[in-house]
Amino acid sequence: MGEYEHILVERKDDTVVITMNRPARRNSLSAGHLAELLAAFTDTARSDASGVVLAGAGPVFSAGHDFADVAARDFAGVRELLRLCTDLMRTVQSVPQVVIARVHGLATAAGCQLVASCDLAVAASSAGFALPGGKGGWFCHTPAVPVARAVGRKRLMELALTGDAIDAATALEWGLVNRVVPDGDLDDAVADLLARATRGSRASKALGKQTLYAQLDRPEADAYTIALEVMAAASQTPAAHEGMASFLDKRPPHWRD
Amino acid sequence: MGEYEHILVERKDDTVVITMNRPARRNSLSAGHLAELLAAFTDTARSDASGVVLAGAGPVFSAGHDFADVAARDFAGVRELLRLCTDLMRTVQSVPQVVIARVHGLATAAGCQLVASCDLAVAASSAGFALPGGKGGWFCHTPAVPVARAVGRKRLMELALTGDAIDAATALEWGLVNRVVPDGDLDDAVADLLARATRGSRASKALGKQTLYAQLDRPEADAYTIALEVMAAASQTPAAHEGMASFLDKRPPHWRD
Amino acid sequence: MGEYEHILVERKDDTVVITMNRPARRNSLSAGHLAELLAAFTDTARSDASGVVLAGAGPVFSAGHDFADVAARDFAGVRELLRLCTDLMRTVQSVPQVVIARVHGLATAAGCQLVASCDLAVAASSAGFALPGGKGGWFCHTPAVPVARAVGRKRLMELALTGDAIDAATALEWGLVNRVVPDGDLDDAVADLLARATRGSRASKALGKQTLYAQLDRPEADAYTIALEVMAAASQTPAAHEGMASFLDKRPPHWRD
Repeated sequence: MGEYEHILVERKDDTVVITMNRPARRNSLSAGHLAELLAAFTDTARSDASGVVLAGAGPVFSAGHDFADVAARDFAGVRELLRLCTDLMRTVQSVPQVVIARVHGLATAAGCQLVASCDLAVAASSAGFALPGGKGGWFCHTPAVPVARAVGRKRLMELALTGDAIDAATALEWGLVNRVVPDGDLDDAVADLLARATRGSRASKALGKQTLYAQLDRPEADAYTIALEVMAAASQTPAAHEGMASFLDKRPPHWRD
Repeated sequence: MGEYEHILVERKDDTVVITMNRPARRNSLSAGHLAELLAAFTDTARSDASGVVLAGAGPVFSAGHDFADVAARDFAGVRELLRLCTDLMRTVQSVPQVVIARVHGLATAAGCQLVASCDLAVAASSAGFALPGGKGGWFCHTPAVPVARAVGRKRLMELALTGDAIDAATALEWGLVNRVVPDGDLDDAVADLLARATRGSRASKALGKQTLYAQLDRPEADAYTIALEVMAAASQTPAAHEGMASFLDKRPPHWRD
Repeated sequence: MGEYEHILVERKDDTVVITMNRPARRNSLSAGHLAELLAAFTDTARSDASGVVLAGAGPVFSAGHDFADVAARDFAGVRELLRLCTDLMRTVQSVPQVVIARVHGLATAAGCQLVASCDLAVAASSAGFALPGGKGGWFCHTPAVPVARAVGRKRLMELALTGDAIDAATALEWGLVNRVVPDGDLDDAVADLLARATRGSRASKALGKQTLYAQLDRPEADAYTIALEVMAAASQTPAAHEGMASFLDKRPPHWRD
């Protein structure tokens, strides 16, 4: 792992913990911060870690884009910033590890987009979620992309048009997060869900996650075309052979990859 | 605003209230009624209003198509009627204003489609929702299009195949409406949610709403292609500049558009 | 109806009950079992039945693929097995009858896929649902296709990545099933929901169901293109004429098809 200015990256057993560490700027996503997050996920993708926790230091998870960084940019400059931001969101989905958001405080705008882009999310019960561009002058166009795909249409419209925050219980009911726990139980709940989501063969899980994102949002027939070919090919991997053999032999599996 | 036979159109401050006014026909959507609704939305789109309330006079919100109007038509005639109806539904989504449905009594068939097509919806707790074509001989094919995109797949199947009505609490749980309130609080709840959804820059909100409908239902990569370009361009608008400047200067924003 | 080894097929009034009958193998979906299910649905499609109940004999609904059958196959062999399985899932959606899953015990992997692929589903309160490939070496790629389209994205990720089972109450909340009832009430609840979903004209309902699957998962404008043409054509059918005439004449309808 490289040296970083805006983030902390720690390896704990099979997990990489990436912590946004600009608490004085509410972990806002300046170009430099985004570039480091992208580098950390890209590095992690090449590692043998099985899971990633994305967390934020200080009072909030992330406040989204840093207006001090955006306001000085012309069209080409903002476009480059948004391209970098979108690359990060797509990379979170394409790395072979299971990525879980550890959400406390507030997750707003591109910060809320990060939560929606992680494979899984656990929130402290005091956490809030918002697309505040709806209150102002610069609408949350790109944050709405993954948020729309996690919550229903009417709920997306309410979040995006009002800009108001929803609480953690509402985020759970709407499907934006997987678990809500008392604030003091947040780390344990993240660890528990990540452990469940990373057991088994890493190679199988990586192919599974990546294929899920490939088939989502498509007409069902197109999704089957993708999933069927991948699943047939996957049946011939060492992991699949070991999974089936151990099941049929009634013994614990031993994963080699 | 023009003169209408089937609807009432009132301007109240920044809001246009469009009221379906065929109570004796349960606000059914005859060709004449649809054409007036389409004209009223088209007129409103050119106005400086920021929001639209769509309501119904009399016992119900709307009973959908008027069978007396449909039964007399041949294929070409029904196709023209459905094209007009679809134009209305799509126009509700494309006008720059935030459109909120004020639902009381029953919203059935194309009436339920209208609720699903509005950006937001508030229902009286005594309201009901149904796709009654499932009970009869003419299936609710087009109403199912936006209803499917608001509720989940199994719930759409139940609504469409049984034709049975769901109550307001179920509609809220399934994401078909945003709020359910006691009948006597309906107007206040509509006004409150609309005020939240229309604050900020009108120009920004219009672009936001229209881009949401452009990116929904698409594979995530395609949606990002749309949203990223729009958001980069939007960063250079007066509204975005004012939003960011007022935030950084810690002063209230002054919207010019 | 033909003679079957792995399944039971019974006609009860207007309903065909197809029962997976390999209880000693937990109704796992061997090639022979899948082929018989496909044949039974194909036969039923040509019959005048209005509904299908898909049930399982013994302790569980279905445990998914039979590893004893899969493990011995090479790539081409597994691909053929998955193609057969996918044909079954798509056929359940394309038959003109309303298909309802009667779920008890466990529905796992391709068994859970079957539940998601049926038009409607009723579960016993003790039932559970899982995509267990997430725990092992062969990921549930194809089962995730219809499950993703019934539950939200974050919920799909949790099911697919953890492999853990959810209970019936959670399946109801997430939209994977339409009803959860005490175990002893399962048959009555299935019969009640199926009766509601099959009343009216069979010809109209078949066209309705098939058009729903054609328009789902598509951008809304594309979905309207499909639904509008079908609905205009459907207006000229005997069923639509009878439905509208009986409504306007205030008499009960008499369906000829």
